[in-house]
Amino acid sequence: MPSIQLEINTGKLSGEGVITAQKKLSQLENVFEDEATRASMDQEQLIYEVQAFMPVEEGKEGGLYFGNSTIFPGKVNEEYFMTRGHFHAKLDTAEYYWCIQGKGALILMDENGKTWLEEMTPGSVHYIPGKIAHRVANTGEEKLVFNACWPSEAGHDYGTIEKEGFGARLKDIEGTPTLVATKNEMV
Amino acid sequence: MPSIQLEINTGKLSGEGVITAQKKLSQLENVFEDEATRASMDQEQLIYEVQAFMPVEEGKEGGLYFGNSTIFPGKVNEEYFMTRGHFHAKLDTAEYYWCIQGKGALILMDENGKTWLEEMTPGSVHYIPGKIAHRVANTGEEKLVFNACWPSEAGHDYGTIEKEGFGARLKDIEGTPTLVATKNEMV
Repeated sequence: MPSIQLEINTGKLSGEGVITAQKKLSQLENVFEDEATRASMDQEQLIYEVQAFMPVEEGKEGGLYFGNSTIFPGKVNEEYFMTRGHFHAKLDTAEYYWCIQGKGALILMDENGKTWLEEMTPGSVHYIPGKIAHRVANTGEEKLVFNACWPSEAGHDYGTIEKEGFGARLKDIEGTPTLVATKNEMV
Repeated sequence: MPSIQLEINTGKLSGEGVITAQKKLSQLENVFEDEATRASMDQEQLIYEVQAFMPVEEGKEGGLYFGNSTIFPGKVNEEYFMTRGHFHAKLDTAEYYWCIQGKGALILMDENGKTWLEEMTPGSVHYIPGKIAHRVANTGEEKLVFNACWPSEAGHDYGTIEKEGFGARLKDIEGTPTLVATKNEMV
C-alpha cells in the first residue's frame, strides 16, 4: 500500500499520517508591516493551510517529509498574504517547492539579509538551497497551492525571522508585486 | 526565476540542469531472470528513461535532487519491464516516489532479503525509508511515470542488487502481477 495519496491536479494529500495545520490572521501578529490594519481585519480569516506527511521523527537524519501548502488570496494594506517564513534549524538543509495552482512569489533571503524572489506559477519547481530563509506570498486572485519535500533533520527556525524579518516586503505597488526594502536592510 | 519546470499532468521536467539518461534492453544484461529471452529481443527497445535535476554535487549533505522516471510497458518472458533497482550508497537515506500516470509496482527489499511491493497508481505517494532497496516495474499497458525526490548524499549502490538480486521477481502469472520468490530467498 502506498504511504499516502496525492491529488495530482490540486496538490492535496490524504491518508493515514497526514496532518493539517491552519494559520488564521489572529495567529500572525506582527508578521505584516501594517500591524494596525492586520489587527482591525477579520481575525478568523484563514491565511494559509499546511498539510504534512512526516513518517519519521523530526530531527532524524536521512528521512524526508512531504507537504502541501495553500495560501489564500488577500492583502494586509499593500502587503500580500504570506507565510511567516523560516530558516531551517539545521541551517544547511535544502527544500523543494513546486507550484500546482495559482500565482505567487517565493521570497528568499540569505544570512546577510539579501532578499530576492522567484515567481511561482503552475509547474514552477524551486530548489531552496541550505542557509536560505524562505517565505511564500500569494500575489494572485485565487488560492496559491504548492507541494514540498524537505529533510526530516531540517527543522524550523521561525525566531530569527520574527526578530529580524526579511530584507524586503512584497507589496502591491500600483498593481505590480514589488519587493520593497525595509530600513537598514538590502534587497 | 524558478529552478526548473514540471509539467504537472505528465511529470516531465525541463529547464537548465535537467539531465536525461536512458536504459535500453542492451544495457540490462542479467537483470531479468530469463537472460536468453532478453538477449533474443530487440536490443534497441527502450526500457526506462530518467530525468534528474541535481543542483548540488552528489555526496553533499543536506541537498536534494528531483527526478522523473518513465518505464515503458512490456515483459521479458513473464517478467515485467523494470529498473535495475538499488540501495542508497549512504544506506540510511530515504526517497519519495509519487506516481503520475500508468500502473506499476514499487518492489522493496530490506537488508535480510525480505521483499514486498506497493502498487503504483496515479497519485500514489511512496515513502521509501532508509536501508530499503527499491525497484519499479511497469505492470500496465501504457507507460508508467513517476516523480522522485531524494537527498544529494544518498548516492546509488547498484552492485549489491547485481550480485544478490531481490528476494523475489515480479511476474505476470495468468494475468496477475505476482511476486515469485527466488531460490534461497524469502518474500
